[in-house]
Amino acid sequence: MAKEKYDLVILGGGIAGYSAAIRASQLGKSVALVEKDKLGGTCLHRGCIPTKSFLKSAEVFKYIQNAQQFGIHVDSPTIDFNAILERKSKIVESMYQGVQNLIKQNKIDVFNGTGRLLGASIFTPQSGTVSVEYDSGDSELLPNDYVLIATGSKPIELPILPFDHHMILSSDDMMQMTSLPDRIAIIGGGVIGLEFASLLNTLGVNVTLIEASERILFNETEHVSRQMKQQLSRQGITILEKTSITSDNITISDNEVTFELDDTITVDKVLVSIGRQAITDDLGLNNTKVELTDRKTIQTNALMQTADTHIYAAGDVIGQLQLAHVGAKEGITAVEHMFNETPLPINYHQMPRCIYTQPEVASIGQNEQTAKANGIETRVVKAPFKANGKALIESNDNPDGFAELVFDKQSNTFIGASLIGPRVTELINELSLLTFMDGSALELGSAVHAHPSVSELLMELGLKAEKQSIHI
Amino acid sequence: MAKEKYDLVILGGGIAGYSAAIRASQLGKSVALVEKDKLGGTCLHRGCIPTKSFLKSAEVFKYIQNAQQFGIHVDSPTIDFNAILERKSKIVESMYQGVQNLIKQNKIDVFNGTGRLLGASIFTPQSGTVSVEYDSGDSELLPNDYVLIATGSKPIELPILPFDHHMILSSDDMMQMTSLPDRIAIIGGGVIGLEFASLLNTLGVNVTLIEASERILFNETEHVSRQMKQQLSRQGITILEKTSITSDNITISDNEVTFELDDTITVDKVLVSIGRQAITDDLGLNNTKVELTDRKTIQTNALMQTADTHIYAAGDVIGQLQLAHVGAKEGITAVEHMFNETPLPINYHQMPRCIYTQPEVASIGQNEQTAKANGIETRVVKAPFKANGKALIESNDNPDGFAELVFDKQSNTFIGASLIGPRVTELINELSLLTFMDGSALELGSAVHAHPSVSELLMELGLKAEKQSIHI
Repeated sequence: MAKEKYDLVILGGGIAGYSAAIRASQLGKSVALVEKDKLGGTCLHRGCIPTKSFLKSAEVFKYIQNAQQFGIHVDSPTIDFNAILERKSKIVESMYQGVQNLIKQNKIDVFNGTGRLLGASIFTPQSGTVSVEYDSGDSELLPNDYVLIATGSKPIELPILPFDHHMILSSDDMMQMTSLPDRIAIIGGGVIGLEFASLLNTLGVNVTLIEASERILFNETEHVSRQMKQQLSRQGITILEKTSITSDNITISDNEVTFELDDTITVDKVLVSIGRQAITDDLGLNNTKVELTDRKTIQTNALMQTADTHIYAAGDVIGQLQLAHVGAKEGITAVEHMFNETPLPINYHQMPRCIYTQPEVASIGQNEQTAKANGIETRVVKAPFKANGKALIESNDNPDGFAELVFDKQSNTFIGASLIGPRVTELINELSLLTFMDGSALELGSAVHAHPSVSELLMELGLKAEKQSIHI
Repeated sequence: MAKEKYDLVILGGGIAGYSAAIRASQLGKSVALVEKDKLGGTCLHRGCIPTKSFLKSAEVFKYIQNAQQFGIHVDSPTIDFNAILERKSKIVESMYQGVQNLIKQNKIDVFNGTGRLLGASIFTPQSGTVSVEYDSGDSELLPNDYVLIATGSKPIELPILPFDHHMILSSDDMMQMTSLPDRIAIIGGGVIGLEFASLLNTLGVNVTLIEASERILFNETEHVSRQMKQQLSRQGITILEKTSITSDNITISDNEVTFELDDTITVDKVLVSIGRQAITDDLGLNNTKVELTDRKTIQTNALMQTADTHIYAAGDVIGQLQLAHVGAKEGITAVEHMFNETPLPINYHQMPRCIYTQPEVASIGQNEQTAKANGIETRVVKAPFKANGKALIESNDNPDGFAELVFDKQSNTFIGASLIGPRVTELINELSLLTFMDGSALELGSAVHAHPSVSELLMELGLKAEKQSIHI
């Protein structure tokens, strides 16, 4: 039963939407959450969580393959892909239960339909009343003071290789796999493409990764790209950079796709992972003053307000860093701003970015190049993980990665890092704290780190910037 | 060839000693390091590093045993203990090479003998000249301005169960094991005892842990002790608390030891791990004004100065927190103070404490009880790791541990934490940074943490203390 009027109506029950809903409820506001699918959205059902569950299975598989290095005899392992799926589903289901419970505990009204924004009318002089349409054909209206659009994103299609959900797959389709292909081509060497490449390669699939631009992981530093390419190549993944797919070099048959590139590559499946498109169609935005960018993402200020100031947007739909924790932060910031809690404006330099491949990659803030472009003089310190005892202990073989920290040369304030190696998707959070607290090299280096730990290397790098490091 | 006079002579080439030596060299000082055994000391050769290498092999073994849970079929693994030893030796050797290189690069003179302090004489009016004696019977004198004593510690013997290095073992002896016993009793449920219990149990040894006091891990909170006991018991370790060993209830035969406790326990080996004794005998301390505590540790102030103000001490020999990173920090602090670099006094509340069992334990600063005893009103927030998605993904089964954070109720400043669960020996370092920077709950909670990551739980706990957490 809908309330007569809500303080806030949220379109989209993904992590941006539901986090915002919970925060608004904490502030004593009445909240309606409109979601046509399952609460938890892409992150929980088709993104972060299921892929990390798969990657964990791959990690264990790799441990077993390398067991001899750890002093353990074992026969060759085999994959029970159904059991991998089952584990994934169990974890997702348990977290899904958790999200549902949170929504219930916070007394948030959930409307399981499609929401659209209406324009101003004689009954509601302010645009933004939400009309919810159900599969049954019924609909109802949710008048409100504020709206948060958090409708997320969907995989971008390649016109010359449109998704058929059978052979030409999106990352969503990958979640529906019931068996592993023998050979796959992955178009796009960004985060999603690389995570699937790492996963599938470890599980024995023949993987060819095709990247149009100059290098994979174009948003990371060249050092990271190069290191990643080297390690994934060594693991057996074929990586083709500066390689464009055109209708001329693809042949699609009933059960195979062939690419005529420098070599001829024939595969059973193709994953197209060239990015994610904000979902803004058919939301009724034309009834409002909300503005879109050229990329059809919703334009907001750093407090997540659109041009229609009582309508906010957060998460993938605004197309900044399309990451779950960023979406959640944006959603919370939107809510805190609308209800006068004076949040800090979003600063994307404070957002960690992670890639859960083997090796893992994590970065935050600025790197040497972006800092330079921003006119900041930098002090850059770098060390290989093989200089760290715990990294040696943790790795199957010699850990090849490195950590590179960037400080403002004037103030020695930390401004960014690029890490590739063991545990870095955890380590980056310490650097996120350092960023938020505007910490310096000496502060990072003076905080005693447990021995042995991988994150000791961060402390040593802080000290290195002060010419006081002991081990590096 | 010894210099005529050194700025600093250090007794002991363990992590406290060699870190201090490198720091002094950075400051342009001439340094002599006296070590009768290998550079790197207990930590590198008999402690932190080899045990963590063993524990990593145990972790991999456990993954293989639980492979089915991750969707992987594999036959039962077997242990090649020689290969486990070999991996350990390889890691230790590589780090040992690293330490030797550092010492060489820093132009530190190493004297491979036993150092003793001499008293004042007509030639050297200041006490503290170091006499180095070699196995050959030769000796030489190292006059100096400053001395740092970093001679470390050794396992404490139990008078009724003296080490025979064959059946009654110290943790040093455990490093010499060439095969696994069938049954072992471990006397002492502190860090060392528990790490060996966890290791050996995982590798298939029948382990009985005997603790005289009320509970294992007496230095951690009761919550942590209880959780650890529960999990280790479930893994098959017999844990006997409040259980004293007396000469009446032990029978030692040629190849077995029998304990008559509530039950009769017969084992092949006994590990006595009841603590470590500072090495202060035969150092010539009687020639100086250096003072010992009742526990025969060297007394220093928070800048590591002894009562003889040009003689400093650091590491296990001062018997504070006997941890490698603490020793290193103490050694560096000593050097910086003697050479007028005005370091901050050592604050043991800033030192992380880790236990590398499965589950891992880590803590820092004060807990609810110690804070209360110090007259601090606290706000305590706690959450189970099973509320964290990445912890679910990482664990073999449901992660049972928790994170408990303690804040000063007045200021909401972070003052301590107790963690038991996955990855906590890395997570604690973020809290070490927070401690050093005097951070608050809101600062921890406002630093965006990557999703999914285990350390997200720390962010959520920061927010929880402010009643703003989303997922817990």
